[in-house]
Amino acid sequence: MVLTMERKAMEIFENHESQVRSYSRSFPTVFEKAKGYKMWDTTGKEYIDFFAGAGALNYGHNNEKVKKKIIEYIQEDGIAHSLDMGTVVRAKFLERFTEVILQPRNLNYKVMFPGPTGTNTVESALKIARKVTGRQTIISFTNAFHGMTLGSLSITGNSTVRQGAGVPLTNTVAMPYDTFMQDHHSIEYLERFLEDAGSGVDLPAAIILETVQGEGGINAASFEWLQAIEKLCHRYDMLLIIDDVQAGCGRTGTFFSFEPAGITPDIVCLSKSISGYGLPLAITLIKPEYDIWAPGEHNGTFRGNNMAILAATEVLSYWETDVFAKSVQEKSKMIKARMEKIVENYPELQATTRGRGFMQGIACGKGKETYGSEICAKAFEKGLIIETSGPDSEVVKFLGSLTIDEAGLDKGFDILEEAIQEVLNK
Amino acid sequence: MVLTMERKAMEIFENHESQVRSYSRSFPTVFEKAKGYKMWDTTGKEYIDFFAGAGALNYGHNNEKVKKKIIEYIQEDGIAHSLDMGTVVRAKFLERFTEVILQPRNLNYKVMFPGPTGTNTVESALKIARKVTGRQTIISFTNAFHGMTLGSLSITGNSTVRQGAGVPLTNTVAMPYDTFMQDHHSIEYLERFLEDAGSGVDLPAAIILETVQGEGGINAASFEWLQAIEKLCHRYDMLLIIDDVQAGCGRTGTFFSFEPAGITPDIVCLSKSISGYGLPLAITLIKPEYDIWAPGEHNGTFRGNNMAILAATEVLSYWETDVFAKSVQEKSKMIKARMEKIVENYPELQATTRGRGFMQGIACGKGKETYGSEICAKAFEKGLIIETSGPDSEVVKFLGSLTIDEAGLDKGFDILEEAIQEVLNK
Amino acid sequence: MVLTMERKAMEIFENHESQVRSYSRSFPTVFEKAKGYKMWDTTGKEYIDFFAGAGALNYGHNNEKVKKKIIEYIQEDGIAHSLDMGTVVRAKFLERFTEVILQPRNLNYKVMFPGPTGTNTVESALKIARKVTGRQTIISFTNAFHGMTLGSLSITGNSTVRQGAGVPLTNTVAMPYDTFMQDHHSIEYLERFLEDAGSGVDLPAAIILETVQGEGGINAASFEWLQAIEKLCHRYDMLLIIDDVQAGCGRTGTFFSFEPAGITPDIVCLSKSISGYGLPLAITLIKPEYDIWAPGEHNGTFRGNNMAILAATEVLSYWETDVFAKSVQEKSKMIKARMEKIVENYPELQATTRGRGFMQGIACGKGKETYGSEICAKAFEKGLIIETSGPDSEVVKFLGSLTIDEAGLDKGFDILEEAIQEVLNK
Amino acid sequence: MVLTMERKAMEIFENHESQVRSYSRSFPTVFEKAKGYKMWDTTGKEYIDFFAGAGALNYGHNNEKVKKKIIEYIQEDGIAHSLDMGTVVRAKFLERFTEVILQPRNLNYKVMFPGPTGTNTVESALKIARKVTGRQTIISFTNAFHGMTLGSLSITGNSTVRQGAGVPLTNTVAMPYDTFMQDHHSIEYLERFLEDAGSGVDLPAAIILETVQGEGGINAASFEWLQAIEKLCHRYDMLLIIDDVQAGCGRTGTFFSFEPAGITPDIVCLSKSISGYGLPLAITLIKPEYDIWAPGEHNGTFRGNNMAILAATEVLSYWETDVFAKSVQEKSKMIKARMEKIVENYPELQATTRGRGFMQGIACGKGKETYGSEICAKAFEKGLIIETSGPDSEVVKFLGSLTIDEAGLDKGFDILEEAIQEVLNK
Repeated sequence: MVLTMERKAMEIFENHESQVRSYSRSFPTVFEKAKGYKMWDTTGKEYIDFFAGAGALNYGHNNEKVKKKIIEYIQEDGIAHSLDMGTVVRAKFLERFTEVILQPRNLNYKVMFPGPTGTNTVESALKIARKVTGRQTIISFTNAFHGMTLGSLSITGNSTVRQGAGVPLTNTVAMPYDTFMQDHHSIEYLERFLEDAGSGVDLPAAIILETVQGEGGINAASFEWLQAIEKLCHRYDMLLIIDDVQAGCGRTGTFFSFEPAGITPDIVCLSKSISGYGLPLAITLIKPEYDIWAPGEHNGTFRGNNMAILAATEVLSYWETDVFAKSVQEKSKMIKARMEKIVENYPELQATTRGRGFMQGIACGKGKETYGSEICAKAFEKGLIIETSGPDSEVVKFLGSLTIDEAGLDKGFDILEEAIQEVLNK
Repeated sequence: MVLTMERKAMEIFENHESQVRSYSRSFPTVFEKAKGYKMWDTTGKEYIDFFAGAGALNYGHNNEKVKKKIIEYIQEDGIAHSLDMGTVVRAKFLERFTEVILQPRNLNYKVMFPGPTGTNTVESALKIARKVTGRQTIISFTNAFHGMTLGSLSITGNSTVRQGAGVPLTNTVAMPYDTFMQDHHSIEYLERFLEDAGSGVDLPAAIILETVQGEGGINAASFEWLQAIEKLCHRYDMLLIIDDVQAGCGRTGTFFSFEPAGITPDIVCLSKSISGYGLPLAITLIKPEYDIWAPGEHNGTFRGNNMAILAATEVLSYWETDVFAKSVQEKSKMIKARMEKIVENYPELQATTRGRGFMQGIACGKGKETYGSEICAKAFEKGLIIETSGPDSEVVKFLGSLTIDEAGLDKGFDILEEAIQEVLNK
Repeated sequence: MVLTMERKAMEIFENHESQVRSYSRSFPTVFEKAKGYKMWDTTGKEYIDFFAGAGALNYGHNNEKVKKKIIEYIQEDGIAHSLDMGTVVRAKFLERFTEVILQPRNLNYKVMFPGPTGTNTVESALKIARKVTGRQTIISFTNAFHGMTLGSLSITGNSTVRQGAGVPLTNTVAMPYDTFMQDHHSIEYLERFLEDAGSGVDLPAAIILETVQGEGGINAASFEWLQAIEKLCHRYDMLLIIDDVQAGCGRTGTFFSFEPAGITPDIVCLSKSISGYGLPLAITLIKPEYDIWAPGEHNGTFRGNNMAILAATEVLSYWETDVFAKSVQEKSKMIKARMEKIVENYPELQATTRGRGFMQGIACGKGKETYGSEICAKAFEKGLIIETSGPDSEVVKFLGSLTIDEAGLDKGFDILEEAIQEVLNK
Repeated sequence: MVLTMERKAMEIFENHESQVRSYSRSFPTVFEKAKGYKMWDTTGKEYIDFFAGAGALNYGHNNEKVKKKIIEYIQEDGIAHSLDMGTVVRAKFLERFTEVILQPRNLNYKVMFPGPTGTNTVESALKIARKVTGRQTIISFTNAFHGMTLGSLSITGNSTVRQGAGVPLTNTVAMPYDTFMQDHHSIEYLERFLEDAGSGVDLPAAIILETVQGEGGINAASFEWLQAIEKLCHRYDMLLIIDDVQAGCGRTGTFFSFEPAGITPDIVCLSKSISGYGLPLAITLIKPEYDIWAPGEHNGTFRGNNMAILAATEVLSYWETDVFAKSVQEKSKMIKARMEKIVENYPELQATTRGRGFMQGIACGKGKETYGSEICAKAFEKGLIIETSGPDSEVVKFLGSLTIDEAGLDKGFDILEEAIQEVLNK
């Protein structure tokens, strides 16, 4: 009978939902319940989650502390939806975010609520950078992923989704990311284009980048590279925008992914795990001197999703001391170790490891790219939710929640190894 | 002490939130609680809500039926966030939406979850229309409002937000809306541009429109005009996209705003009240023959917001019979009557009434545009939340929740009249 | 043997020239000699020329006065090519043009040599208008023709040549020309789009127009319409650009086509007959206050074609008194009379007359469009060179040289009537 | 009295010509006569010409052979202007060009007459490449110069002229030219961008390049680089366009500049010296399989400038044997030798030599860029016309006519050396 429900649901998706659906194809089941790093489908099968809602569930599924607060709030008829009207929840978040996150890091930003999605914070960042500088061009990087609406898509690298635009994507220039060329001379290249008045690249309003490229292949920029980019931004009076939608909120081991590089972006984009319960929320952080918006110049109906803001306030408690960050950093080492052993144990993959923190991947080598998808499919059969990344889906990407314990990590990686073995023995 | 809290919150907004905030300026207080058609601020002051979250709260604040379901779901650790993976909640919504909404109206659409905001459904509609036709141009209308991301913004009329883009907005052509010219010859005009191969308007992929323009001044298109547009779309093989983000979900008295016109759009955009609890959700309805998406060609982290989908499923019960729709239609007449009386009673405004259903407005006449903002500001002081609309904020716009009762309507309109009197006697 | 030469040349065109050639298809012969309003092909066949090099030969083929001067100049090794270096020829032209053309008309313009083609003067006009205003949008009109390079093409109406761009044409808006709508309410439309801040048409840098649309169907704007456009330009601080490439240099009976309308454009584009011998030349006239070019900001190798400038100086003698203009105006009446009689005599064409001066046409009626091409083809067989115009080639267009005599006009129109009769009797 | 004429002419330029003029500022005099490699101003002063009309006078000023033919043609009332109608002159050119130029080089191209300027042939090349491939993006190179109309400008590198567009320049990507990076790894960069589906550079329609960049600094690509580019074009199914407007027509020592590299472009753009008398003409050569134009899809009034075509036919005689080419190659060595000696003799310039054939330059080193303009200004005073090139005008550029004799070269270089000495001794 349960099986019937599963089958019926699958038919409903096939008959009534658009062909655009994707994860329901990678993970072909019907989920019903979730807690921490585990999910269960309608047949009761348990899954270890190394995907964490594409990085939107850094604090695990249905985090108990947040859950309690949300239920209370709903029960008391707290304001659910208020656009950008003043609410108690909104004030508290702004206060706490400033105290817990910004001030201890010596950061001074105005907080903008641009609409509750990653693409919305990116679009708002592009707008304000163009307004501040009066210039049009934005420099982004190879294999960047910034979103699906026309502005964000124009700075996204993937050719399939770019073509989906149906119109040319303009006013942007793609430059080589730190890891794009083997010789790592990407900074010299960028510098030449900026310094030569005849280069054909118009002086940009801003440079936007992810410190670790989540969708583009778990490419992690070196701190030196990030510092060099910041220097170029200062020299040429361009704004530096860090899209920390996936790499932020602790995923790399610090709240902001750029902290260990010692740089200070002019604009920061946050979304995914900023709410911490998988509730849609995004914020854009803007240096006060650049906060020259006219009221309502960028808006959106769901920019004031109070339940999400309430959750976002609650999870700030993880960042009051450095205990949580340190635990993430510790577990990151364990993840790296397991990945390196896999690379060593399965030379057939000709793989290498990549990334940092809770954003690491095993990149299958040239000519071995298809292993990526095969391994993830096999792992799913065995009860592990894990996704690929990269232009050829060649990277097996770990993106588990930061709250996962060692047992969970072990179990997940054990399944992953089994999957690899089976794929290779096929 | 409460006053202090209010003052402190206001300071927090001023110091820590971006200058972009707008409604917190129109309604300068700090809200704490809401129920049905009422809101309360931290001082305990009660407000009648004629704004309903810009149309995202058609079923009132914190609707009891939905509230119970959400709490249960959270308590049972139902899946909160799942991108577009299969979940029980998702399957149920698709099934129920088909049964309750589509089939009784003889409509056949595939449902796409494009990301949880209005602008996201619009961007997805533009993409698929361009993909289906292989053409670039989109025709939109004067005073249209479709969203703030680059694609949606390019079909939005308002010059202030357009300028916010910081880059030229391209591949779109603005045509006169039904009510734009006094002579109402907008169809002939559009037709001439399409039929003349030398007109300079390239054959478009699609025409996108709101049947009632919510932000652009509560302009309501006649049914004849909508039918003429549909005919042009068929004749010139263009897709017809109805952006029903604000006018849909019952706001005009039927579930879809285009029902009484007897037309069948190729694509329908829904958001705002589709979830019914102010939770971020959007869906794009696409005729099956046009659902030619590649998997993942348009995506977004928060496209599977299960709490919102659960709420959306629950509020479908309002549409199982025609009782609710009829009550909305009845109350609409009352709204119209009150507005017409106001127009009559205050000839100094040189006003006219506009709109249909729960989307009606009082448009102050030429030279009297500033009364719009003054009246709304005064009404707020007196405990009524009501907003302006139109290029010069000249329209006082009623956008209350559909579940408001007659007493609520009466009380709200009484306050509005008092506000008008005071403004005029100033 | 002559026939063989003809045949061989035709083969050469077919085998070695690109498929893009067009007039060699409309007029399938090989021309060898020309004088005044006559041309001869290699077989010795004589043709009356009602086409005048698409309006580049206003003073007839191989005008004797100019011819003598050019030969002298070449014989004396005068500077042929000098970019924009100072030459005697250049100085004399500037001096004479100011004295003979500008001063008597109370016009004050700086003269720019933008490269020797119509499209080049138009591109230069768009650039300076955008630089002066800091805005991007240019308003052009339905059925406009301004040129084939990307900037000019973006303000050209014809869908076939627009599609040839291979990229979307942007930053332009097409508005209805005076004659586009039957009700002639085009000014009201344009005005509404400009006055309504929500119209979706961004405030333009400039309006560009032809007073008579040569390629778009010999549509002549009324003087009232031109005056209304000028007023709108002043009210909204937009520049008014008159593209007088085809209608200027006397073609409509005055040197500038806009003189009888009493308007003063901010920028005027001249080419085609400005040199008067069919030699490539173009000039852009710019009000001194808008001449804010940086040196070399627009350039081009052939902008200083001294032979053409010499010719241009020589033909100014036609404009020293009003004798020539008056003769053109007289002959224009005769042309109109002949055309009206044709319309009357051949009701099967359901035709109407159009245009003014030496730029008039017979427009075949709805459903009769194909007659246009058939008549011109038949006329060519009979020794008359005449072309069609309009989006459906429905207009038989007279564009003879201004120096043609009455006998020439008579003979040409006689051939035209014969051709019409034969086509209708077919 | 002569001096007065000079002064008066200068006043006329200042008062009546646009500020956009540039060469009349570099060479502040009024020219009257020219022959071979010499020019004279109105005061009778003689100048050696190392500029040759920016490369439009490869066969010298007022070439005797051509001069005679033109005078004859004019005297006989040959067709001056005919758009693209068939003329005897046009047929003869097509025949001769095929016989003398194309066939001996095993090249098979259709000839298009796109309008008489360099920018026009470039715009036509972009259009046909986009039409053939159905793609939009064009790859051009750093410091490229292709023209001033919107399409050509979008692939031109110089930031000042780009900004002159007044709108964003789109659908193009600038890649590093062979000489742009010190490490010469530009091919690897380009290759990575093409091979990586996530690079953010959409698959281009074509690559366009100059084999020697005339305006961008006399940068000469190596033959290996050109061959590598051709290979990439084949591998990725992109068209290869060579803009040979300045480097073609013998300037580098062979008729086409790309001959010694052994590559076969899909499209070739020619202008400047194609007519050989400084008369405006341009042609686009297109492989027959790509000549898919619709008739008239690209056009232009002056595309059939018969006097220029006649001249173009006449100068083909220089290419009937290899005598002329060899003499150019011999003299090129002498030019190189003189330049290298200058570099050696004046180490203060920290200069290097660049270029090939009759397109060579002395590039002043880092920090010494301003010497370029100073030297040219001083040389002009002393009777030598020579221009700078490069993003900072740092290159002293030799661009003399190919027919100059050794005495002329010697005299010119002697003046140049004197100028350098005086500048350095200042």
